[in-house]
Order: sequence, then structure tokens, then C-alpha cells
Amino acid sequence: MSRNTVKLASGHEMPLAGFGLWKVPRETCADTVYNAIKVGYRLFDGAYDYQNEAEAGEGIRRAISDGLVRREDIFITTKLWNNYHRKEHALKMAKAQNDAWGLGYIDLFLIHFPSALKYIDPEVRRYPAWWMDDEGTVSPDCVPVRETWESLEQLVDDGIAKSIGVSNFQAQMLYDILCYARHPISSLQIEHHPYLVQPDLIQMAQENGIAVTAYSSFGPQSFLELPDKFRERAADVPLLFNALPVKTAAAKHGVTPAQVLLRWATQRNVAVIPKSNSSERLKQNLDVISFDLTAGELESISALDKNLRFNDPGFYLPNYPLRIFA
Amino acid sequence: MSRNTVKLASGHEMPLAGFGLWKVPRETCADTVYNAIKVGYRLFDGAYDYQNEAEAGEGIRRAISDGLVRREDIFITTKLWNNYHRKEHALKMAKAQNDAWGLGYIDLFLIHFPSALKYIDPEVRRYPAWWMDDEGTVSPDCVPVRETWESLEQLVDDGIAKSIGVSNFQAQMLYDILCYARHPISSLQIEHHPYLVQPDLIQMAQENGIAVTAYSSFGPQSFLELPDKFRERAADVPLLFNALPVKTAAAKHGVTPAQVLLRWATQRNVAVIPKSNSSERLKQNLDVISFDLTAGELESISALDKNLRFNDPGFYLPNYPLRIFA
Repeated sequence: MSRNTVKLASGHEMPLAGFGLWKVPRETCADTVYNAIKVGYRLFDGAYDYQNEAEAGEGIRRAISDGLVRREDIFITTKLWNNYHRKEHALKMAKAQNDAWGLGYIDLFLIHFPSALKYIDPEVRRYPAWWMDDEGTVSPDCVPVRETWESLEQLVDDGIAKSIGVSNFQAQMLYDILCYARHPISSLQIEHHPYLVQPDLIQMAQENGIAVTAYSSFGPQSFLELPDKFRERAADVPLLFNALPVKTAAAKHGVTPAQVLLRWATQRNVAVIPKSNSSERLKQNLDVISFDLTAGELESISALDKNLRFNDPGFYLPNYPLRIFA
Repeated sequence: MSRNTVKLASGHEMPLAGFGLWKVPRETCADTVYNAIKVGYRLFDGAYDYQNEAEAGEGIRRAISDGLVRREDIFITTKLWNNYHRKEHALKMAKAQNDAWGLGYIDLFLIHFPSALKYIDPEVRRYPAWWMDDEGTVSPDCVPVRETWESLEQLVDDGIAKSIGVSNFQAQMLYDILCYARHPISSLQIEHHPYLVQPDLIQMAQENGIAVTAYSSFGPQSFLELPDKFRERAADVPLLFNALPVKTAAAKHGVTPAQVLLRWATQRNVAVIPKSNSSERLKQNLDVISFDLTAGELESISALDKNLRFNDPGFYLPNYPLRIFA
């Protein structure tokens, strides 16, 4: 049977399939997480930006106290938001996030975007956690990535994070960090689905010992529930669930199109973090190693590539020209 | 009339059209440069890698001593090769390059690629100046970009370079350098033609005061004379000179397709550095501001975009997985 974890450069193991907490409402998050653990989920992918870290932590703590799992069975990923890239803010914020989860340590701490915004005191505005303030103004800050990366390394030294990594970074920035990293880049999290395959970036990361995690594995589907610019872009594109090579493989293997999309990633050692509100789908999405796609099936799915990105701040920051994927 | 220079962030002016020295044979380089000056060229784009800096300098010095131009009329760009990214090597090499040109200073000094290779003593092997040694081995080195950038800044302090910049860099790396630069990033040189438009990268650079210079403005044409991997990739693609919107605009304006391709760039404030062995074409290529393309013509040419890159070390370093554009 295929392995269901990937070994990180830090030496720790990360599950290949986890539960993504983006867009999980704060009100239901603790229960959602608790139920996901019951179904078998062990990795939870959070972020300060998702505004539900305390609640996700509550669900996990409940599962631990109910004897469903032990802390060491669980893998928590979380991310540092853009307003806290300066060292003094990064360290303070990471400690606050770790306290919010309430589980002693974070398994994987990522820099969410390679983009610094001006500091906002979380006591003054608890969850700025977005690119713009209430008036729609983006206030960029200039903080070298190295300062933020070294803050994450400090978290490892302090026992707050077991492994560290980055999200939404390009190859050149990864090469640069590799040159000064004291603790390895354990993981890179990127938008990754058959419309945005980025084979070179994935190969570069994996060849350099950086485990890749895919977000938005279902492509446009993940964005249809969002407002404005996000939705517009996704609404024009045929759903990947209906794409012929996905449907054909699903029928052949007797699984859902969603499972095919997830297996397409995990079979290439790319971790996935879907979410679902249906407990049946939750179960299916976790079962991503019980079947293997053929080389031809993998290829025909990869051939859907359009280099089409849905999550680019350039799309939804119309008044601030940030172009981080150029 | 349109301006034929662009103002750099350093405060200096750079011509919008220049002469590219890549692939100009060392034997004929001095004469080629001298004749180009006669035709009207003022910007020469060189590099240690092109192996003809001393000869290019010789041609310029001859033109100066013949009274054709003054030093201050000429704009020299050159580039630091990958083997010299460490500070001690960068400073020594840049001084040696400046001596080779023999014109007192360099107008614009660029980091050629964001990729460091192990040092090779130029006394031992005068022109390694390539990714591989004679045995075909690539020996990467790990040098943070900041160390190399700060070396270029030292060149400005020392009066060796008037302006500094980078080549083949992605947006994230530019944002990062912008955060620690003591002297501005005056220019970004990239592969740029209608098959590889990269509008976001160009917009990002220009919005941040970084003047863009295009190399390989004619697309596949520039690579057909090269061996192996380079040629293979270019041979499969229709020439841009024959592309319908290029030919149509050329006919309408009574210019050559080459002039249309160059004007397509300069009209958007992107500098160009073509080369030619024909003195008639040399003259034509320099005349890139005497006509204006319509907005519709610019658009129809940009619509040829295939995101198709010809100059990627990933193509010609098959045994070393460098992926700098992912």
C-alpha cells in the first residue's frame, strides 16, 4: 500500500491528506474539527487569516480529552499573516496563535504570503486578517523575507514550531532562502489543481527536499462560494469535476471525481487539504491512497493545465498593484 | 516626437534602443561596435558571459578617439556572471570587467542570473562563462542574492557603476531586494517578445521604478543560430516576422516586421537591444520611435502571447535541475 505520510526535511512526518480550515465558519469550527477527527483526519490546515484557530484547537482538545486521539497523532499547520512580518511582531503573533490553538506547539508554521503589510495591533482590531482595512486601503510594508524567515527559525528554537515553511512563494525566493536557512524549508503550500499544474515549481521544491501541499485542489469549485473578483474568475471556467479525464478515471476506479483530483496530487507526493461540509464526502476525501491512477490517467489530467490561477492578490487588490506571481 | 531614452531610478538616462553584444564574435566585435556607433547606436549591452567586453570597449574607445562620440554619449550595460556571486569575487570581477571595457566606468551593471555557481579563477580558465565546465558539470553555489546585490551597491559607491540592476529575476525577488536596497534597482532585463509577454512582471517593475529591457525581441529568431536544446525549441515555432499582426502593422507603417517588434516594446517604455550583421538592418532597428503603433495593433501583437520561453537554463542544463522561472 502507498504511504499516507510524507517525510519533511525537519525529520517529522506530515500526513498526505488533511482538512483545510479556510472558510470554515468560526461558530461551527470546533464541531467540524471534532467530527473530522472522528472520520479519521489527523492534519488540520489553519491560518491566522482563517479566523478560527482557537475554535479548531478547541475541537482537537475535545477529541483528545475524549480519548479519540493523542496530541502526537495530530498535525497542525498554521500561517503567519502579512501584517506581522517584522521580527518583533512575528514572534509575538506566533506565540499568540500557538496559545489560541492550545495544543502546546504547532507542527508546521508557514509564512502565508511573501508580502508584508503594515502592522495592525490585534488588540485594536482583533482580526484584520485581510489585505485591506475597513476602508479598502492596502498598506504595504517593506520587510525582507529573511527577517520573517529567521523569525520562524526562532520559533523552532523556542519549541513553538516543529517544522517551518512558506506558502505562495516562487522558485527564486525558495533558492534564496535555501542559501541562508538555518532550519530547513519543510514545506511549500501553493494553489495546485489540473488548471494550474506548475510542474517546474513542484519539481524544484521536491528536488530540494521541500514537501509540497496543494490548496484549492478542486480548482474553480473552491472559489464559487466567494464574493466578487474571486467568483467572477471561477464562474467562467468549467468545473474540474466535469472534466472528461477526471470523470473517466472516476468511473473506472469507482470513486468520485473529487477523489481522483486528490489522488492525482497525492500520487505525485503532493499533500492535499480539502474541506467538505458533508460527512460522506469528508470520508471519501480522506481515502486518497486506496487506488492508483495509471500513468496515462495522471498525464491526461495534467494535460488540462491552463496556467490558470484563481488566488492572486493582484485580482482582488485593484487599488494596490501587488503582483507576486509574475 | 517620442522620447528615445528612459529615466532610471538612479537618475541617469538610458537609451530605449541599443545594440546587444550576445553572440557577436570576439574577432569582429571592435569593428562591429565602431560601425554601430557610426550608424547611431549609443547603448551597448554586454556581459562577461558574451566574452567580448575588451573588444567592445576597444571599438568604443576608437570611436571616441576618432571624435565620433564622447564617453558621456555612450551607455554601457554589462553583467556579473554566475561564478562570481560571492562578494569578494563580485568586486574583483567587476573591476576586471571595468578594466576590460577601458572606459572609466560602467553605466549599468546587472546580476546576469539569480543563480550562483562555484567560483572559477579567471586566471586558470579565462572564460568559464557558461553554466557547465568542459566536462559538462554544473557546480552550483549557495550565495544569498543580498550578498551579490550589496556587491553591486559597493560598485556604485566606488564609482565603477553608475546604475545597477538585475536580469532574469522574478517579481518576488524584486520585491525582496526593494526592501533592502541602498541604491535603487534601476533596471530589469528579461526575455520579452510577443510569445512571452509577461505583462504582470513588466507592470510590477515599471510601477516600482524599475526600467525594463527586453532581450530576444524577435523571439525564436534569436535562437535558431544556436546549437542543441536552444535551437530545437525555437525551430518548432513560427517566426514572429511572419505573424499576421506583425506583418500587417509593418505593411501599414511602411517598416520592417523587426521594427514593429521593437516598437511594440519601446512604445510601452521597454528598452530593446537587437543586434544585426547587416548595416541596413542596424539602421532600421535603431529607428524605433519614428512611428507609433495603434492601441489595436499593440493589442493584437500582445495577443500572440503563448507564455513561451526560449532562454531557460532548465532546458540546457539537463543534468542539473535548476528551475529559476517556476
